[in-house]
Amino acid sequence: MIRIGVDVGGTGIKVGAVDAEYRIIRENSIPTRTDMPFEEQVGRIADCIVSTVREAGLTEDDIASVGVGIPGIASAKTGEIIKCTNMGWHHVPFRDVFRTFLDKPVAIDNDANVAALAESVAGISAGTSSSVFITIGTGIGSGIILNGKIWSGAHHIGAELGHVIFDLDGVPCTCGNHGCLERYCSATALIRMAREAASEHPESMILELAKGDPARIEAKTLFDAARAQDPVAVSVYGRYISFLAQAVASVVNLLDPEIIVLGGGVSKAGDFLLEPLVREYPKYVLFNDQPLPPVRIAVLGSEAGIIGAAILS
Amino acid sequence: MIRIGVDVGGTGIKVGAVDAEYRIIRENSIPTRTDMPFEEQVGRIADCIVSTVREAGLTEDDIASVGVGIPGIASAKTGEIIKCTNMGWHHVPFRDVFRTFLDKPVAIDNDANVAALAESVAGISAGTSSSVFITIGTGIGSGIILNGKIWSGAHHIGAELGHVIFDLDGVPCTCGNHGCLERYCSATALIRMAREAASEHPESMILELAKGDPARIEAKTLFDAARAQDPVAVSVYGRYISFLAQAVASVVNLLDPEIIVLGGGVSKAGDFLLEPLVREYPKYVLFNDQPLPPVRIAVLGSEAGIIGAAILS
Repeated sequence: MIRIGVDVGGTGIKVGAVDAEYRIIRENSIPTRTDMPFEEQVGRIADCIVSTVREAGLTEDDIASVGVGIPGIASAKTGEIIKCTNMGWHHVPFRDVFRTFLDKPVAIDNDANVAALAESVAGISAGTSSSVFITIGTGIGSGIILNGKIWSGAHHIGAELGHVIFDLDGVPCTCGNHGCLERYCSATALIRMAREAASEHPESMILELAKGDPARIEAKTLFDAARAQDPVAVSVYGRYISFLAQAVASVVNLLDPEIIVLGGGVSKAGDFLLEPLVREYPKYVLFNDQPLPPVRIAVLGSEAGIIGAAILS
Repeated sequence: MIRIGVDVGGTGIKVGAVDAEYRIIRENSIPTRTDMPFEEQVGRIADCIVSTVREAGLTEDDIASVGVGIPGIASAKTGEIIKCTNMGWHHVPFRDVFRTFLDKPVAIDNDANVAALAESVAGISAGTSSSVFITIGTGIGSGIILNGKIWSGAHHIGAELGHVIFDLDGVPCTCGNHGCLERYCSATALIRMAREAASEHPESMILELAKGDPARIEAKTLFDAARAQDPVAVSVYGRYISFLAQAVASVVNLLDPEIIVLGGGVSKAGDFLLEPLVREYPKYVLFNDQPLPPVRIAVLGSEAGIIGAAILS
C-alpha cells in the first residue's frame, strides 16, 4: 500500500506516491487552473493521482489514503477547505467532492503544517514529539507539532507566527497591521534591509554584487557580501540575525518545543545562518540557564509538501 | 477521597482539601520560611496538609494525591523543582523529600499553568479542551491548555507569554531584554503609562484621584478616571487596550485556542476591560473573517491556585 500526498500551490499542483519508508516512489505535477470550476479542478487532481499510481506499476486499490496540503486553512474534521485565496477556494467541500472521483480517506491541512509534520516524521526532527517549523521565505510560515500531531488551533487559524506582533506600531504588513514578525524575519525583510543599506552606503559590496542595481539585491546578495566581510553587509546581517534570534526566543519562551526547524529560502544559508543564531537566541530566553531547544535546518526541501500530505492521515 | 492542592507563594503557602466537585472543603496557610533548610520547609507543608485534613474530619487515608503549584519551573516527570527563585529552591527533589513525610502521589507545576488548568476544569473555561490563560498583574503570567492538558514545554520553560518580544528594542524588562510583552500589558505597564501621562498633564483627573502624588497612582486610579471620562485617562486606557488587543491577537494568530481567559488584578475591571478588548482584538488577527476565540474573565480568583494544584494529578 502507498499513500498519496498532494501539494497544492498557486502555480502548480504536485502529486506523489509515498511508500511506508516515507519515500516518494513516483511524482507528477499539473499546472494550477483557477479558471476552471472547483469540481473540475478536483477532478484533475484525482486523474493525476490515478496516472501517478499507474506509472508506479500500481492500481487504485493500492492507495491507502490521500492527503492534501494547501496554502490556506481547512477543517481536518469536515474535510472542508475554509479559505485558500490563491486557488479562489472559499468554504468548498473538498473531501466530499474528491471522493466522488476517488473514494479514499482524505485529509487536508495547511502547507506549512504539512511540512512541519513531514520533518517531524521523516526529516530533521524525526523522533521528536514536539517541534516548531519556521519557513523563511517571502513571508514567515510556521507549523506547530505537539505530542506528535499538528496543532492548527481550535478554529484552524493558528500557527501564523509571521503575524505575531513583534514591533509595536512598526513596519506596515501586507495583512493590514503594523510590526508583524514576518516584516523583520522573512527573506523580504532581509532584502528590504539590504536595499536600504546599499542606498545609504553605495560603496558597499552589496550594490557591487547587484551590478549597481538595488532592485537586483536578493537575500543571497546580502549573504555573499556578508561572507566576504563587507562591513555594511555584516552590519545588516547582524541586525537580521538579532531579529531572528528574538523570534526564535519568543517561540521558546511561549512554547518550548523539543526542537526548532528552519526551512524556506533563507535557511539554505545553512551554518552561516545557524551558528550566529544558536549563539544569540538564548540571550532572549527567560530561563536560559536550562537546556534549550536546538535549532536545525529542514532536510526534506520541496519534498516536504508531498511527504507531509501523504502522512496526514 | 479528597485531593490536596498546595499553592506556594513568596510570602505564604496555602493548603486546601478539594473534593470531587472541585470545592475547597478546608483551607489553611502557613508563612513562607525561606530561612529554613529545604527538608524542613517541605516537612512544614506536609504537617499543614495533615492538620487541614484532620480539621476536615478526615484522615491521611482519605488523601488521593497532592498537587503543588510553584512560582517557578518543575519537571512533572521527575518531581524535581528546577528553579523557584522566591523560595531559594534550585534543583531540589521535591517529590522524593515530600514522600518521606507523606507517602502520596505528588504532582508539581508552575502556578500560572496550575491556574490555567483550574479554570479549564472547574472555572470559566470548563468544558473546553484548549485555552490560554493570561494573568495580568505585576507581570504577565500565562498557562496553555491543549487537549485538556497543561503544555509547559519540552524543557518545562514554556508558557512565558510575558517575555515574548512585543516591541523590538523597546522598554527595558526586568529579565534583561527589551520590549517584552509584559512591559506593555501588565498592571505595572498601565501604572507606568498613567504616571507618565499624569506628569505631562497635571490637570488630569488621574493626579487628582491620587491626591496629587504620582506615586499613589495605581491601575484602579486609571480605571476610575477613564470611567469618569477624563480625556487623559481615556487616551492612556485606549492605548493600553490596543496593546492588550495585539497581545491577545498574537496568541490567537499563533495558537488559536478555543478560549482566552484573563486573570490577575487588572482583570477585575471586568466588562470595562473586556468590551473594548473583544471589539478591538480581531483587527489584529490574520484570519479575522473566521470564528475567533471568545475572551472571558477568570472566575476562581485566588482559589485557582489550590484547585488547579489539586487536580494536577
